[in-house]
Amino acid sequence: MSMEEFPLSDVYQLLEPGPVVLLTTAHRNAQGHADKARQNVMTMSWHMMVEFTPPTLACIVSAADHSFLALRASGECVIAIPAVELAANVVGIGNCSGRDIDKFDKYKLTRAKAAKVRAPLIADCFANLECKVIDTRLVDDFNLFVLEVVQAWRDPAQPDPKTIHHQGYGKFAVDGETIILASQMP
Amino acid sequence: MSMEEFPLSDVYQLLEPGPVVLLTTAHRNAQGHADKARQNVMTMSWHMMVEFTPPTLACIVSAADHSFLALRASGECVIAIPAVELAANVVGIGNCSGRDIDKFDKYKLTRAKAAKVRAPLIADCFANLECKVIDTRLVDDFNLFVLEVVQAWRDPAQPDPKTIHHQGYGKFAVDGETIILASQMP
Repeated sequence: MSMEEFPLSDVYQLLEPGPVVLLTTAHRNAQGHADKARQNVMTMSWHMMVEFTPPTLACIVSAADHSFLALRASGECVIAIPAVELAANVVGIGNCSGRDIDKFDKYKLTRAKAAKVRAPLIADCFANLECKVIDTRLVDDFNLFVLEVVQAWRDPAQPDPKTIHHQGYGKFAVDGETIILASQMP
Repeated sequence: MSMEEFPLSDVYQLLEPGPVVLLTTAHRNAQGHADKARQNVMTMSWHMMVEFTPPTLACIVSAADHSFLALRASGECVIAIPAVELAANVVGIGNCSGRDIDKFDKYKLTRAKAAKVRAPLIADCFANLECKVIDTRLVDDFNLFVLEVVQAWRDPAQPDPKTIHHQGYGKFAVDGETIILASQMP
């Protein structure tokens, strides 16, 4: 894999802009193994940063999503951030369920082994964040999981990715111009 | 004010793309009035949608922020969404504290009266969301507030706003091209 380690202290710069992301999970079988058939991937836009250090985020995974049980049971996931070139796949992944098909196969995603969680990385994405669930108090009422990023990866071959931002029913704003204003704020 | 009511069912289309927003609050005085001197505004990028209906969101307001006490005590705020034309003001607002100055005056923001909360709308922004705090269980540990949007407004004079997405230290991606892909997902 061509991914390089990415500093945990800079993870917020990837998530704070609100890109559409992919979330992978792995269910373990009775022997405790998370084989390929038990891995899944979903599309997600409802996430935010919570804390800089350790990098902490929150996300909504609906109880109706096939990934919900795996996330709740395993307490682990990977958040993979796709650039606009993957937009059609991102929409496709969001419009079908892992109950019915292997979405990695259907969308020809390249899985890679994570360092600290059983869920797979997606090598096609420009960044991958290995996460552990650290708070579930708001899961029953709001499907809200709090996650800590325990390992981050970035693909040096995609130095200037343009992310996508969902505005409903398949309409996306793509990152355009970059502006830089003097600011003290991280 | 030129703001028109905006359907609550479509509020997610404004927040899901992850724009930088402004958050206004109003502290009440001993007589229960929230006069102008007790209003404040801060810049915020850490927010996400939680539920479509009623429109529910989560956001992080640090206990170190001057707005924290007002939000916690009043249980109300307004989230105002600025277009890129306001970017310099948005950064300025994020780099000073309402402890020291009246940020509405300094940045020449046009306040307008909200319908259901005491915090002010910002008429210069293309959308304004009046919010009530509905869950504080994660405030002590994560500064995480859950809010319900009880009234939404949109400025028809800004039909195609470009929002900004913070990537750290004053670097922003501005909305660029819009792409539309066939999708069943709201």
